[in-house]
Amino acid sequence: MPQKGVKIAKPEGKLGILLPGLGAVSTTFIAGVFLVLKHGFAPVGSLTQMQTIRLGRRDEHRAPLIKDFVPLASLSDLEFAAWDIFPDNAYESALKAGVLGKEHLLLVKGELEKIKPMSAVFDPSFVKNIDGPNKKEFKSKLEAANLLREDIRSFKKSRKLSRMVMVWCASTERYVELTAAHQSIEAFESGLANNDASISPSMIYAYASIMEGVPFVNGAPHLAADIPALTELARQKGVPIAGKDFKTGQTLVKTAVAPMLKSRMLGVRGWFSTNILGNRDGLVLSDAGSFKSKEVSKKGVLDYILQPEAYPQLYGSLYHKVRIEYYPPKGDDKEGWDNIDIFGWLGYPMQIKINFLCKDSILAAPIVLDLALFMDLAQRAGMRGIQEWLSFYFKAPMHAPSVYPEHDLSIQHMKLKNTLRYLMGEGLITHLGIEYYDYWGRAKKGK
Amino acid sequence: MPQKGVKIAKPEGKLGILLPGLGAVSTTFIAGVFLVLKHGFAPVGSLTQMQTIRLGRRDEHRAPLIKDFVPLASLSDLEFAAWDIFPDNAYESALKAGVLGKEHLLLVKGELEKIKPMSAVFDPSFVKNIDGPNKKEFKSKLEAANLLREDIRSFKKSRKLSRMVMVWCASTERYVELTAAHQSIEAFESGLANNDASISPSMIYAYASIMEGVPFVNGAPHLAADIPALTELARQKGVPIAGKDFKTGQTLVKTAVAPMLKSRMLGVRGWFSTNILGNRDGLVLSDAGSFKSKEVSKKGVLDYILQPEAYPQLYGSLYHKVRIEYYPPKGDDKEGWDNIDIFGWLGYPMQIKINFLCKDSILAAPIVLDLALFMDLAQRAGMRGIQEWLSFYFKAPMHAPSVYPEHDLSIQHMKLKNTLRYLMGEGLITHLGIEYYDYWGRAKKGK
Amino acid sequence: MPQKGVKIAKPEGKLGILLPGLGAVSTTFIAGVFLVLKHGFAPVGSLTQMQTIRLGRRDEHRAPLIKDFVPLASLSDLEFAAWDIFPDNAYESALKAGVLGKEHLLLVKGELEKIKPMSAVFDPSFVKNIDGPNKKEFKSKLEAANLLREDIRSFKKSRKLSRMVMVWCASTERYVELTAAHQSIEAFESGLANNDASISPSMIYAYASIMEGVPFVNGAPHLAADIPALTELARQKGVPIAGKDFKTGQTLVKTAVAPMLKSRMLGVRGWFSTNILGNRDGLVLSDAGSFKSKEVSKKGVLDYILQPEAYPQLYGSLYHKVRIEYYPPKGDDKEGWDNIDIFGWLGYPMQIKINFLCKDSILAAPIVLDLALFMDLAQRAGMRGIQEWLSFYFKAPMHAPSVYPEHDLSIQHMKLKNTLRYLMGEGLITHLGIEYYDYWGRAKKGK
Amino acid sequence: MPQKGVKIAKPEGKLGILLPGLGAVSTTFIAGVFLVLKHGFAPVGSLTQMQTIRLGRRDEHRAPLIKDFVPLASLSDLEFAAWDIFPDNAYESALKAGVLGKEHLLLVKGELEKIKPMSAVFDPSFVKNIDGPNKKEFKSKLEAANLLREDIRSFKKSRKLSRMVMVWCASTERYVELTAAHQSIEAFESGLANNDASISPSMIYAYASIMEGVPFVNGAPHLAADIPALTELARQKGVPIAGKDFKTGQTLVKTAVAPMLKSRMLGVRGWFSTNILGNRDGLVLSDAGSFKSKEVSKKGVLDYILQPEAYPQLYGSLYHKVRIEYYPPKGDDKEGWDNIDIFGWLGYPMQIKINFLCKDSILAAPIVLDLALFMDLAQRAGMRGIQEWLSFYFKAPMHAPSVYPEHDLSIQHMKLKNTLRYLMGEGLITHLGIEYYDYWGRAKKGK
Repeated sequence: MPQKGVKIAKPEGKLGILLPGLGAVSTTFIAGVFLVLKHGFAPVGSLTQMQTIRLGRRDEHRAPLIKDFVPLASLSDLEFAAWDIFPDNAYESALKAGVLGKEHLLLVKGELEKIKPMSAVFDPSFVKNIDGPNKKEFKSKLEAANLLREDIRSFKKSRKLSRMVMVWCASTERYVELTAAHQSIEAFESGLANNDASISPSMIYAYASIMEGVPFVNGAPHLAADIPALTELARQKGVPIAGKDFKTGQTLVKTAVAPMLKSRMLGVRGWFSTNILGNRDGLVLSDAGSFKSKEVSKKGVLDYILQPEAYPQLYGSLYHKVRIEYYPPKGDDKEGWDNIDIFGWLGYPMQIKINFLCKDSILAAPIVLDLALFMDLAQRAGMRGIQEWLSFYFKAPMHAPSVYPEHDLSIQHMKLKNTLRYLMGEGLITHLGIEYYDYWGRAKKGK
Repeated sequence: MPQKGVKIAKPEGKLGILLPGLGAVSTTFIAGVFLVLKHGFAPVGSLTQMQTIRLGRRDEHRAPLIKDFVPLASLSDLEFAAWDIFPDNAYESALKAGVLGKEHLLLVKGELEKIKPMSAVFDPSFVKNIDGPNKKEFKSKLEAANLLREDIRSFKKSRKLSRMVMVWCASTERYVELTAAHQSIEAFESGLANNDASISPSMIYAYASIMEGVPFVNGAPHLAADIPALTELARQKGVPIAGKDFKTGQTLVKTAVAPMLKSRMLGVRGWFSTNILGNRDGLVLSDAGSFKSKEVSKKGVLDYILQPEAYPQLYGSLYHKVRIEYYPPKGDDKEGWDNIDIFGWLGYPMQIKINFLCKDSILAAPIVLDLALFMDLAQRAGMRGIQEWLSFYFKAPMHAPSVYPEHDLSIQHMKLKNTLRYLMGEGLITHLGIEYYDYWGRAKKGK
Repeated sequence: MPQKGVKIAKPEGKLGILLPGLGAVSTTFIAGVFLVLKHGFAPVGSLTQMQTIRLGRRDEHRAPLIKDFVPLASLSDLEFAAWDIFPDNAYESALKAGVLGKEHLLLVKGELEKIKPMSAVFDPSFVKNIDGPNKKEFKSKLEAANLLREDIRSFKKSRKLSRMVMVWCASTERYVELTAAHQSIEAFESGLANNDASISPSMIYAYASIMEGVPFVNGAPHLAADIPALTELARQKGVPIAGKDFKTGQTLVKTAVAPMLKSRMLGVRGWFSTNILGNRDGLVLSDAGSFKSKEVSKKGVLDYILQPEAYPQLYGSLYHKVRIEYYPPKGDDKEGWDNIDIFGWLGYPMQIKINFLCKDSILAAPIVLDLALFMDLAQRAGMRGIQEWLSFYFKAPMHAPSVYPEHDLSIQHMKLKNTLRYLMGEGLITHLGIEYYDYWGRAKKGK
Repeated sequence: MPQKGVKIAKPEGKLGILLPGLGAVSTTFIAGVFLVLKHGFAPVGSLTQMQTIRLGRRDEHRAPLIKDFVPLASLSDLEFAAWDIFPDNAYESALKAGVLGKEHLLLVKGELEKIKPMSAVFDPSFVKNIDGPNKKEFKSKLEAANLLREDIRSFKKSRKLSRMVMVWCASTERYVELTAAHQSIEAFESGLANNDASISPSMIYAYASIMEGVPFVNGAPHLAADIPALTELARQKGVPIAGKDFKTGQTLVKTAVAPMLKSRMLGVRGWFSTNILGNRDGLVLSDAGSFKSKEVSKKGVLDYILQPEAYPQLYGSLYHKVRIEYYPPKGDDKEGWDNIDIFGWLGYPMQIKINFLCKDSILAAPIVLDLALFMDLAQRAGMRGIQEWLSFYFKAPMHAPSVYPEHDLSIQHMKLKNTLRYLMGEGLITHLGIEYYDYWGRAKKGK
């Protein structure tokens, strides 16, 4: 068990947060940071700001805040930049998104209006149903990457930043199969130069980010950095990367409820999930290609958690169906309805129905914050490549090829916290807990 | 970390299962064991029969069945006995309970008809709304205990059992505060002799069980063995005890959903839970005294999971209301409806509704089986007193006075499995998992 | 069939609306009227303002607005007065109620602040859990009635009103059985003089209203005018009366869904209804006596709609349970959850679950408006006593002793509209509709 | 108002019921009739067997059973025949459908086994996803029609029937637009001879039925008899026809809940309906063409009930989405989930969620029975062409071109009952009900 921990550089200077996409999620995140800093709002949903971490035995009562335990950047050191195909500044965009009330946005109007989106790298063949005027002109995808890299450097210089993180908060691109251009750094870079059709804008952003030494996070379900060329590039450049697809509403619930059923060995015959949502995300997802990206991201969850190959009697014939419906009356409110057909002792059937009336961006915003701060921590701790310990935040977590992804929310949570304990040289928690009992007539040791 | 494990006696000979109460839960359990053994039904819901346990690294793919990993009694070695105030044999009682279909009960009619309840120790001042004729006559509670001890010995002798376990499956008694008679072995035994009014039938059963060296499990929310006198007696006699209140429907869900909310730092303003059920359990619980026992058992769950004292902003003003409604049209079907009022980023409100259409006894029966087998294992492993590692199965788990109870289902599950690994000398799982990555440019070790 | 209609006086001059209770319902109603008049808000939920009425054949396409068809008072002719035990003016009270957003209340702040409650006739033995300082002093209930009559006359005089209506919008009183003092005008008046304990404040208000020739409406479930003494007094004085208990959330749904089931001859084994609400109404109803009033009002609905005596096979063993739970996190939001256990062909079971996330006062406010205008119409049309045609708006409609109450929402709606057609001399609608077909080879006539 | 009623021939002799389709609905219907006749099961869901009808004033208490009021065929006079592409007899087919329990089917096994399907007229271009071997061979659609007519005559002769009715209970055909071949009898008959591609099997069945003088009912959403050629043919031949699409689960609820909202003038911003079902019907509807037929049938409902053109403020921007999902775990169980976004007073939003756990064929079977008996009644009463008074049973009721269809369930119910009263010469009910009150100081007359 680690006793010394890992050497971590101090979070000195300013941390820049680069956001592809300045829509509902980004503006809810940015406005929230200002409201927390200047108006006493609570950063609810953020582990880096509010969660404690237990250290040592259960009866020691040592449980500092995470932010007092590991060296994180402070909210007051954050600076923001974004790219978007619409030219609206962050205030205008937030108003249109309709997530935060106008009475709250007015409190930070000045700060938001200063955030004007840089022109975006966009390709309509990857995102249907929306388009906008604020786009870069380029002849090759390599040129596009270079333009983004200039944006990144100029943001760093103008704000005098010491470090940066990029978090993808833009629309979901259509589903893409892995091609030869994705397989190696060389093939990828030559694909950029030759405008290979299988290289999407999100890959270009990821490439630019990694080349600039900036940790990259992907909040959408498309591949972006999750291709061999870019994971290898991140390793070589010593840059942390993480993704994919923020785990917010229905999938969040799924990754808590499915482990409950499995831990109790309750069988599942069918799981029907429908989602109704009315924001730009819903509009984009009403395109079959983008939906395919999302569906792949959402459907893997149950297979990995329930392990039908290990439990064919319980989960071997599970019928899993996921639907996403564009339904404008909801706006940014999103509503999931799950019907779960289970069976217990001797095969007797039961049912669970879950109706989650949630707000997409309200759930996503603190995830953006936590990932930005934890990725910056990882970089300062010298951790490079895929950060699997941040699986907690993703629907389709990136992971080493040698292992399966971990989808169980509570295991993900434990993984995250034990990683923090490990980094700081604290004992890992196992929940064994036999030390509180004299089962064998004397005190035993353990965790 | 343990390397050698613990010495465990082999499960030789027959294991007798003593059941106070021969109603819906007991008969569903017993009939199920016969249907599994003789007719190929699946013991769904049982960890001892169906669950695997991961050993070693995630990429070793070592995951034997629990029953192949730890030495458990086999289903074919089980023998059953029960006490009940109604004289119906197990077949008649199962038919009346209406849980299992008649077409299934007919397959094991012969086996069930042989199980005739012994006369019960009953006290109408502890259970309202039901009464029956099959009761023991006694002048003092001590005499009642002795009659039960004779029943136990006679069951052991007549069936040539090598070991026994007792699992309380009868009705919920009314709420009782701790009194002087509960505080020490001496006070308790003199209370038995003097018919102290605060000693309930379930305490008499627990006392008889422990005195006979038989592990005792309490599936109902009343105190039974959870008083200082009996936990000390269990320790002194080297007998494992566990309880209280099988965690089946609504609370099962609660202990998966509340940790999800807390792990994500989502606030909770209110949680309203209502349960409609139509069986004998519902009838008993429609008495205010019995409901009080249940309510205390059910309400603690959120306080311990959410830790309002650590998170006053998130859970400090949580309004929690639990209702149980006797509603005969449901029969043994039970239905929970939860309305959860949560809030996220900046305090914005959201809601979750969960409707669980479950079957009480179908969920409880495999718990009876698992607890019987694990308690027998604990005894053979020399573990005495409170078995906190079995918290996974209880709404109000018994625990050492020095620690708070653990209610989070996934932590309970981990505690159970790491205890098994510990007993068998396998490494504990921490889910750290940094060994699969070369974060620092070289392979690191860990779990 | 009536050909000439009924003579109706014109709605000239101002109409005063007297409201016992200046809480959530009253202030939402009053603020709404001003917002409609001055700020273009829509009076959604109001038949008098928005509904059309079909006249003649289906292919005539004659469907004027109700307000263009019958002579109703105009919104701009309304004046408001209220009594309340709290001295808050309508603006302060509306803010505390939290129903309408502050941004909307600010638009009509001036108008609302002018409405200050007159001191109330209050008796804590009839309403538990709340009390306030703004109360009248009196020695006898007769004196209390006289003080109210003075308030009424003074309101009429000061505002130069031509007509008035009183609508009870205050709390639910505890359940009261009919006593001798309720049976005749003489007994009632002597009970007033002698402070008979069975005469509640709402009866005193109703008495004062009728004696002043002012139509009286009861929006709560307690008896108020629904006693022989006061229905006879209303008849003798030529005053319209109506009640009881505004039909808003869960019962509204029930009176649409139960007729659906019955029209299709689907059986019902059980109906479980729970309501969670957090406003003052919920607090009052958490008292057993007030709940009893509500329960009696809510439970009759199914018996009358489903007619178990006519359909014993379908509804004879229906188990009906109604719960109201005080749950502060909801505030004025109210949420109903209904579980309906039904059966169809050959007795096969099915289920319906309905979750209604409603706002109590938002549903009640337009009912107050409609009843005020229709009761004024009734008075101008010379209609006296119980106005059964307004059953549409009530959970427990008042009715003639010779007939059963009509609870089916669609029948109530038809009754209301055919009454309007009758008053105006239009043909009644029967929905026969054979005139559009030549079933027998020639056009037939009918409606 | 009719005083004499209509002359109706007596229901003498046997009534043959011809069923295209011998699947879940047909076998549940047939088995049910035998179970009712021979084993005392209740024909729940059937108006002809169980409902009463009020006659005269509300205080007369005259409410005979419908079957005692109008001359209907008796259950014991029914004979059954069916066509199907699968050769299973009714017992085998019922077992596979899995609607009725085997213990019930065994009681009428003998009767069911005698019902073997005649070979069907089938065209795979109209129904995707299923096919079977029991099909007729024919060169032209006219020949197909003639083969069906021979089947009909031979059924009549062999069973010595006095009358017949045909009720379509087979799969939904794909959506078809009206073509020239549908516009006149001549064009249709020449289309039959020329194998016009727009003439579907259901149209051929309808044609054969009408030509044989047999009333035709369409339980599916495709056009069948609802084309000008066949409605005119029915009129000329004096044959009653009715359709389309049995109103069972979700739409049944919709036509009760939408009128509730409209009667109360509550606005609707959105209505999202999803249906999960696992039977053959679901499989067929997972084809886009068949779904289109269903969607058109289901979506019209709200437009006609809510009248957005009359109420643009309330329903003008209603977003209505209907989804049907094939989800095998449900089997014949069908589950609807409706999310209804409404608004009330001043536009304030509220929500209703309805979860209907129903059984498709259990709801449809009594509709088949009622329609067979009422259509036979219509024929004996000399009524020809479209029977709009049976709209009560249909999602997309056929109606005269001059009028809009009536979708409100309660109005449809009233139309049905007033038609029965009209036929028998009883006064129509208007629910005016002023006769029970002396509003004007004297008794008034009315209904």
